[in-house]
Amino acid sequence: MGRGVTGVAVLGSTGSIGRQTLDVISSFPERFRVVAISARSSRDVFSSQVHRFEPKLISLDERSGLHFPEARRASPEEIAVHPDVDILVVATTGKAGLAPALAALRAGKPVALANKETLVMAGALLTEAARQSGASLRPIDSEHSAIWQCLWGEDHARIGKLILTASGGAFRDLPPEQLQHVTPGQALAHPTWNMGPKITVDSATLFNKGLEVIEARWLFDLPLDQIEVVQHRESIVHSLVEFTDGSVKAQLGVPDMRLPILLSLTYPDRSTTPQTPALDLAALGALHFGRIDRDRYPLLGIAIEAGRRGGTYPAALAAADETAVHHFLAGRISFVDIAQIVEQVLEKHESVSDPSLDQIIAADEWARKAAEETLTSRV
Amino acid sequence: MGRGVTGVAVLGSTGSIGRQTLDVISSFPERFRVVAISARSSRDVFSSQVHRFEPKLISLDERSGLHFPEARRASPEEIAVHPDVDILVVATTGKAGLAPALAALRAGKPVALANKETLVMAGALLTEAARQSGASLRPIDSEHSAIWQCLWGEDHARIGKLILTASGGAFRDLPPEQLQHVTPGQALAHPTWNMGPKITVDSATLFNKGLEVIEARWLFDLPLDQIEVVQHRESIVHSLVEFTDGSVKAQLGVPDMRLPILLSLTYPDRSTTPQTPALDLAALGALHFGRIDRDRYPLLGIAIEAGRRGGTYPAALAAADETAVHHFLAGRISFVDIAQIVEQVLEKHESVSDPSLDQIIAADEWARKAAEETLTSRV
Repeated sequence: MGRGVTGVAVLGSTGSIGRQTLDVISSFPERFRVVAISARSSRDVFSSQVHRFEPKLISLDERSGLHFPEARRASPEEIAVHPDVDILVVATTGKAGLAPALAALRAGKPVALANKETLVMAGALLTEAARQSGASLRPIDSEHSAIWQCLWGEDHARIGKLILTASGGAFRDLPPEQLQHVTPGQALAHPTWNMGPKITVDSATLFNKGLEVIEARWLFDLPLDQIEVVQHRESIVHSLVEFTDGSVKAQLGVPDMRLPILLSLTYPDRSTTPQTPALDLAALGALHFGRIDRDRYPLLGIAIEAGRRGGTYPAALAAADETAVHHFLAGRISFVDIAQIVEQVLEKHESVSDPSLDQIIAADEWARKAAEETLTSRV
Repeated sequence: MGRGVTGVAVLGSTGSIGRQTLDVISSFPERFRVVAISARSSRDVFSSQVHRFEPKLISLDERSGLHFPEARRASPEEIAVHPDVDILVVATTGKAGLAPALAALRAGKPVALANKETLVMAGALLTEAARQSGASLRPIDSEHSAIWQCLWGEDHARIGKLILTASGGAFRDLPPEQLQHVTPGQALAHPTWNMGPKITVDSATLFNKGLEVIEARWLFDLPLDQIEVVQHRESIVHSLVEFTDGSVKAQLGVPDMRLPILLSLTYPDRSTTPQTPALDLAALGALHFGRIDRDRYPLLGIAIEAGRRGGTYPAALAAADETAVHHFLAGRISFVDIAQIVEQVLEKHESVSDPSLDQIIAADEWARKAAEETLTSRV
């Protein structure tokens, strides 16, 4: 990290993680400078971010009609490799972060990754790019940040298994037969984390945990059968690692994304000023753990199976879910339809082995259309 | 550790930790060899250990009348520095491990420490000896082993605080007014750990946790006000570290001393074959945490205060407690008398700053006599 000021580019600056990233950075003006931000919507938020952080580069939809004379327009891929960018934060949703993340890693720049789809769709390409250039791929997801921290100073060969924790989402206590009738509003009431709408629905289906299992497979270079999921209601234990000698390490903290965001920026150092109140275990009283009911969460198994099949299945998986969740949030399909649509799309998918970026994007586009068609044929 | 066979000396081989150490070693005949064992009593156990492990050196009370023609007699200090000893396991009780531990560290040999009194009495001498020779001081206590593991790969300057967990011992749920009447038999029924009688009583008074706070101060080179104690009933989370950024790391495992014993021997590697069943968080269901009731456990505060004062106070503390617990186990004093006797001895103690080994031993002897006198004056 050195003693100079680190130039940070934030892709997806107006989303939940993007805004928290800028919030964290603003606490350390002597350490970080916002060099570039990008967003696809949220004109007002974006405008205020440009005025507040005065980035050199911006990326915004051409049709936005916004103009900032002090900032130069650039594509996310240009931002990713710009000499002033020392670290790229990928906080976009969906596949938007894929090409810039790959470009940054190929250019040897560290990438802090909050976007799940990026690694799910193109894990092999990204990890190979990081390996070749020596750039680090740093997780921002609380689960992966936890595992990352638990592995510092440990030997990869002595990892027994990774244990991802899952809160269980908004409907963890609802009788399964009532899931048919839940509304988007109910799905957006996450019990422990405050996140964007798509990821909150994915938490309720545990689809997000399926994506995280696939991400963990790439981030930590382990087969899927060494990755487990355990239910943990309080979202205090962010994840755990069991080693071959039976010892287990866990990372804990209050559920606040600013902690893993900041760590991804300061790594290998830690900040000396916490962004969050201290964890008070005695005040919490108890931490609960339980098995995941696979029948309640069919999308978890569907996602892991897509990860196991590999090729372009994970890309099709992510795209089908994004389409289905979009229609659920718009009130067009029921909550349980999401899993059914994703499953039907994957059944029809013709996967490509060792896909290129273009083939991954093609699978994504195919799966979106296939999901729409599945929807239309149901009506 | 290298690829050769590691020569292990076990001081206190017939006690709880000593027996478990030999048990663990016997699972790895290609990796470890028992070079020396020592004990002060338990003739039958010792004899069977000599026949089973065929150590080159033994140390046993001259008056035992036992003879083993194949093994040479040596003092614990001679064992500690013998060329065939690659690591010294100090599993004695009380001050017996002090001189050999110091000798081994001065000779540059790693010491695996299960004995609490050693560091409590002579922490400054031992850590200085380790620093000068470069030898490692490896904790076997589950709490310190947990903290040790949580600190691998971390920067010492980024430690916020250490959080030691305490089960609360045998009387954690007893109304305080009934503590006056508990019997030695009741005190020996520890809820989660199977240990020797002295340490089990020390768990019921939380005196052991006070010793562990002082030990942690030396092992991890931190002031006492950066070390906290939290109650944790299940003894699954063995201890935690909070870092300056607010992140907390914990080490967990089934309560079985063979895990930290083995780690102290294989360090910096981990074993690939666990000695214990895997931790199953979902089956456990919940982990509980709470504040320590300082009124219920006066010895915790007394011990930490002795640690804060330093000098020979900690040596006097350990000796006074050992004497008092001995009399409690013999049925001569009540459970609540233990704390009162220790407190009275410390009030009379005239501490020496930066004590030598001889001054530490003298403080120990003074405190034993003072405790006996306190007892006599009460009758």
